[in-house]
Amino acid sequence: MRVIIIGGVAGGMSAATRLRRLDENAHIIVLERTGHVSFANCGLPYHVGGVIPERSSLLLQTPQSLAARFRLDVRVATEATRIDRENKVVHVRNLATGATEELPYDKVILSPGARPVRPPILGIERALTLRDIEDTDAMVAAVRGQKTAVVIGGGFIGIEVAENLVHQGLEVALIEALPQVMAPLDPEMAAPVHDALRKGGVDLHLGSGVTAIGEATVTLADGTELPADVVVAAIGVRPDITLAAEAGLTVGERGGIAVDANHLTNDPDIYAVGDAVEKIDALDGSATLVPLANTANLAGRRVADHIAGLPTSNRPVLGTAIVKVFDLTVAATGANEKRLQASGRPYRAIHTHPASHAGYYPGAEGMALKLLVDPETDAILGAQGVGGEGVDKRIDVIATAITGGLRASDLAELELAYAPPYGSAKDAVNMLGHVADNLRSGVTRSIQWHELDAAVAGGATVIDVRTPGEFAAGSIPGARLVPVDELRDRVDELPEGLLVVHCAVGIRGHTAVRILAQLGRDAVNLDGGYKTWAAGRDSRD
Amino acid sequence: MRVIIIGGVAGGMSAATRLRRLDENAHIIVLERTGHVSFANCGLPYHVGGVIPERSSLLLQTPQSLAARFRLDVRVATEATRIDRENKVVHVRNLATGATEELPYDKVILSPGARPVRPPILGIERALTLRDIEDTDAMVAAVRGQKTAVVIGGGFIGIEVAENLVHQGLEVALIEALPQVMAPLDPEMAAPVHDALRKGGVDLHLGSGVTAIGEATVTLADGTELPADVVVAAIGVRPDITLAAEAGLTVGERGGIAVDANHLTNDPDIYAVGDAVEKIDALDGSATLVPLANTANLAGRRVADHIAGLPTSNRPVLGTAIVKVFDLTVAATGANEKRLQASGRPYRAIHTHPASHAGYYPGAEGMALKLLVDPETDAILGAQGVGGEGVDKRIDVIATAITGGLRASDLAELELAYAPPYGSAKDAVNMLGHVADNLRSGVTRSIQWHELDAAVAGGATVIDVRTPGEFAAGSIPGARLVPVDELRDRVDELPEGLLVVHCAVGIRGHTAVRILAQLGRDAVNLDGGYKTWAAGRDSRD
Ligand SMILES: Cc1cc2nc3c(=O)[nH]c(=O)nc-3n(C[C@H](O)[C@H](O)[C@H](O)COP(=O)(O)OP(=O)(O)OC[C@H]3O[C@@H](n4cnc5c(N)ncnc54)[C@H](O)[C@@H]3O)c2cc1C
Ligand SMILES: Cc1cc2nc3c(=O)[nH]c(=O)nc-3n(C[C@H](O)[C@H](O)[C@H](O)COP(=O)(O)OP(=O)(O)OC[C@H]3O[C@@H](n4cnc5c(N)ncnc54)[C@H](O)[C@@H]3O)c2cc1C
Ligand SMILES: CC(C)(COP(=O)(O)OP(=O)(O)OC[C@H]1O[C@@H](n2cnc3c(N)ncnc32)[C@H](O)[C@@H]1OP(=O)(O)O)[C@@H](O)C(=O)NCCC(=O)NCCS
Ligand SMILES: CC(C)(COP(=O)(O)OP(=O)(O)OC[C@H]1O[C@@H](n2cnc3c(N)ncnc32)[C@H](O)[C@@H]1OP(=O)(O)O)[C@@H](O)C(=O)NCCC(=O)NCCS
Repeated sequence: MRVIIIGGVAGGMSAATRLRRLDENAHIIVLERTGHVSFANCGLPYHVGGVIPERSSLLLQTPQSLAARFRLDVRVATEATRIDRENKVVHVRNLATGATEELPYDKVILSPGARPVRPPILGIERALTLRDIEDTDAMVAAVRGQKTAVVIGGGFIGIEVAENLVHQGLEVALIEALPQVMAPLDPEMAAPVHDALRKGGVDLHLGSGVTAIGEATVTLADGTELPADVVVAAIGVRPDITLAAEAGLTVGERGGIAVDANHLTNDPDIYAVGDAVEKIDALDGSATLVPLANTANLAGRRVADHIAGLPTSNRPVLGTAIVKVFDLTVAATGANEKRLQASGRPYRAIHTHPASHAGYYPGAEGMALKLLVDPETDAILGAQGVGGEGVDKRIDVIATAITGGLRASDLAELELAYAPPYGSAKDAVNMLGHVADNLRSGVTRSIQWHELDAAVAGGATVIDVRTPGEFAAGSIPGARLVPVDELRDRVDELPEGLLVVHCAVGIRGHTAVRILAQLGRDAVNLDGGYKTWAAGRDSRD
Repeated sequence: MRVIIIGGVAGGMSAATRLRRLDENAHIIVLERTGHVSFANCGLPYHVGGVIPERSSLLLQTPQSLAARFRLDVRVATEATRIDRENKVVHVRNLATGATEELPYDKVILSPGARPVRPPILGIERALTLRDIEDTDAMVAAVRGQKTAVVIGGGFIGIEVAENLVHQGLEVALIEALPQVMAPLDPEMAAPVHDALRKGGVDLHLGSGVTAIGEATVTLADGTELPADVVVAAIGVRPDITLAAEAGLTVGERGGIAVDANHLTNDPDIYAVGDAVEKIDALDGSATLVPLANTANLAGRRVADHIAGLPTSNRPVLGTAIVKVFDLTVAATGANEKRLQASGRPYRAIHTHPASHAGYYPGAEGMALKLLVDPETDAILGAQGVGGEGVDKRIDVIATAITGGLRASDLAELELAYAPPYGSAKDAVNMLGHVADNLRSGVTRSIQWHELDAAVAGGATVIDVRTPGEFAAGSIPGARLVPVDELRDRVDELPEGLLVVHCAVGIRGHTAVRILAQLGRDAVNLDGGYKTWAAGRDSRD
């Protein structure tokens, strides 16, 4: 059996090593256009920043090491230029010598990845992108001795590159055409990320695209001109479908290679995985693009299984993702509120602001969590977390709960490992479950930060149940202060009609709503309290 | 409705606050024997050690604060001396004044906790125990100015106390009658904990109980006499069933109060929760004692729900637990191998030694993980983790997977948040799933460290597939070195019969087994490789 794998990094090389373990006799050829295989794409920005000082740390394997251990025929600087499906040969070109060759195959695995998007901006030729080792070498060289940089695009890679250029001592501006960075986040969750970037020294420009790249400057739509010795384009990536499309393989509506339940394209001898393919969205089964390493590696392994005759399937994806933004951790899984709103799908949103571990044990760090729940089935639709230590843990737990089919209320009952340095007796994830359970059972009601103005316009009164000190330090315009501990005695002071109660994060507000409801009042809790409201307000500035 | 809650800390106070939120009109009395309620039991050792410098940090609430916010009638230094079920009154005694009183009730919630076991050792009166604030004050005072301490018992609390006495500058010996500390761990997983304790400066004595406590010494069964200005007994806790038993409530075979699916005792007006009650074991539905804060708090809340007429249930427990041991994190969930072996239940064990995050990103720390799997159903039976950063996350993810009914092989497909500072593209939990999947599907076979001697006695040959350098640094007696990359060429050197292959952790061993199996050889992987074998050996020393 001759198997040709096109693309020698995450998806491709995972398929190759697994296939060798399953089939000692297969002839496995791995074609890679760049000069390196099996490198750590995800580490590239950190090498630019000097956080990963050794370039060699990024090179996990070499053609030699892969030949020795896995008898793989790995050819770097070798491009697959055409798949001739009729004759079952792949045309290749050695990029060093220019020599071409035709390689017969029984099976092809396509894992060609994605290409950075280069928008048609005047002067874009000067912009660097970051995808492989060669790009990294070029960026390291380009940055040396320079003073200013403009990074275009506030996604994962743009943010990582911006932070790392700051580490190298450059003055860095980050430009995002949308009003927020990090598309997987909802606006109020992105607000602390904006703060972290600014605090880290990044000159953040939101809601204004780049109109031109000059010789030493970048011009924004709002007229701002920024100094730019270095320009990096990190606007996103697009599936690399060149080969596939030319070979007549089906490309889906999202622009990725279409594959079936076994990762097969419309050609029964050609598989495709990784950034280049469309995945099945776990929320609604629609086609989606999820250019992440976990997805690519796992799918590569599954394709090897299928070739070797083991059962496997193309699993729907949640798109669990994470990024470090200076001292902040930002993570998300599943659907966000923006998407649910756009699709008209009903949902419930829950915001909390727990500590990473018991407050009485030193070093606890704060975080903001958001949970999205299906109000009919109580299914968990998605989650977001922004903060210090332990955000990754909570998002991983929730991603696992979604995969296990746990309901939002079930989170209340998870037995998570508790000792003071690690969590709380009722962990942050348990608390999300309690709140979900209270909303599901009707024990409480809440409204969202973005619904407050409409509620007030409709006659609602905002009651701030915090302390006078907290109130003085910043409050919602028009709110009346009645500390929760005085609420029972002062309830007669409150007007009739809807009362929107809030505290700092929602906990005292919850108790206050219960008191008021039992006293016959119409009360709702402002979800996430003042903190979420303020983050939402900041996101609109 | 008059509700009397006996015990004002984890289970009791969680019930009280929740009940108030659900029922503004209930008359809720909380009786607490000690001078404090709602304190952070789990923080007590850290206050002894000065890690939590302020005593006030341990006192989360006071009777006053609970009255103000929750209209709770909290009575400290007040003991419930008898429950008169016939007349539905609780007899109480004010421990300050000696005054007694009879309080009528509609419902009682018992959350009296547990009492430290005091074994009948000569001189035990001098031993301190740690359960409440008064104990803590006594220990802080007793430790001041002293030089030597002996801690009896290598469970969670014994270990925390030993570490914290080291922080206070004492010379500390830790005595454990069993051959290992930390009962939830299997022996080979406890071995690194022993190392950490010794490295931390604790004089660890295993497999030898205390026979006598003298005025300034402690004598062990093996004759060792240890200097002991301070003696701490941390042998475990026993459910506090005094009141319950005297009131004729059923006590189960494990010595805890027996409760039903609604946390009701055999009296339909008396609930019981927390350390004092028997729980339902998630593995097999048997009665079990799980004295943990998460369990107590959640059950307290559920009882309030039941009183208020909300649906609830007494959930089976996994017993997820965690402890910090100097720089080490030690965590477990579900069943361990010792228990499965003892009960004759079939299982598969998997050991891995992953890094906390991508090795190429700075600061990655190692850990040992162990997964126990039902070989028939592929159900996850339990897991253990010992190591640095990220152990808590992996155990929480696995605990969630168990609760969600995920199979071991499903772990392979979890989409966990990956960026270099947080994990690996195929996360440590995914890897456990891959190994489980390989065992399930028959792609590979493994044997355990404790099965090696028998295999060798039966004629098996041990093949070390690491490098000569690794081999020279320490190897399994009798093992033959054939590095994995040379295996295909040197297979003829290997004898017939069973080949037990091993590398450092199991990864290269896995590839080697696949090569050998396809070359027609009878090969198994030594699970967890040299590291697990060496830890197992150390556990037998
Ligand atoms: C800077 C950066 C940071 C990232 N950080 C993260 C992160 O933190 N977490 C995360 O989950 N993901 C991250 N990713 C994404 C992750 O690296 C990708 O999702 C993953 O590598 C996709 O795997 P793949 O096999 O589809 O493509 P790739 O790994 O890109 O491999 C495709 C390879 O195919 C080669 N190729 C393409 N066409 C041909 C051809 N015709 N002939 C020969 N070779 C060809 C390409 O040269 C390329 O090397 C990051 C990516 C980048 C660039
Ligand atoms: C030092 C220490 C460290 C711990 N660390 C952890 C940890 O890291 N993680 C973890 O999960 N768990 C830990 N625990 C266990 C955890 O604290 C308990 O599981 C939890 O507190 C049990 O809750 P409870 O309500 O059943 O009992 P408790 O919280 O102990 O409350 C029971 C209360 O009832 C009172 N009482 C008893 N009888 C009467 C009576 N007749 N009248 C009036 N009052 C009475 C007692 O004085 C006591 O204060 C630790 C415990 C200790 C002591
Ligand atoms: C590393 C790479 C070459 C894959 O190699 P690999 O041999 O499949 O992967 P690993 O070295 O992690 O080993 C995994 C194998 O060891 C097994 N394994 C892991 N731990 C084990 C243990 N303790 N005992 C037994 N087997 C174990 C796994 O089951 C798996 O084997 P399987 O696929 O047959 O089930 C490929 O993923 C790659 O090129 N990665 C770098 C690029 C990349 O991923 N970039 C994006 C992220 S930066
Ligand atoms: C603290 C203690 C008094 C319980 O008080 P509590 O008010 O029930 O608990 P919290 O302050 O954590 O608040 C939890 C409540 O707020 C709600 N909540 C939490 N975050 C929220 C948010 N962001 N928005 C809305 N509601 C929220 C929860 O749903 C829960 O309410 P519910 O029970 O009605 O569902 C009790 O657990 C205790 O005494 N603990 C200390 C002792 C102890 O636990 N020791 C062992 C471990 S050291």
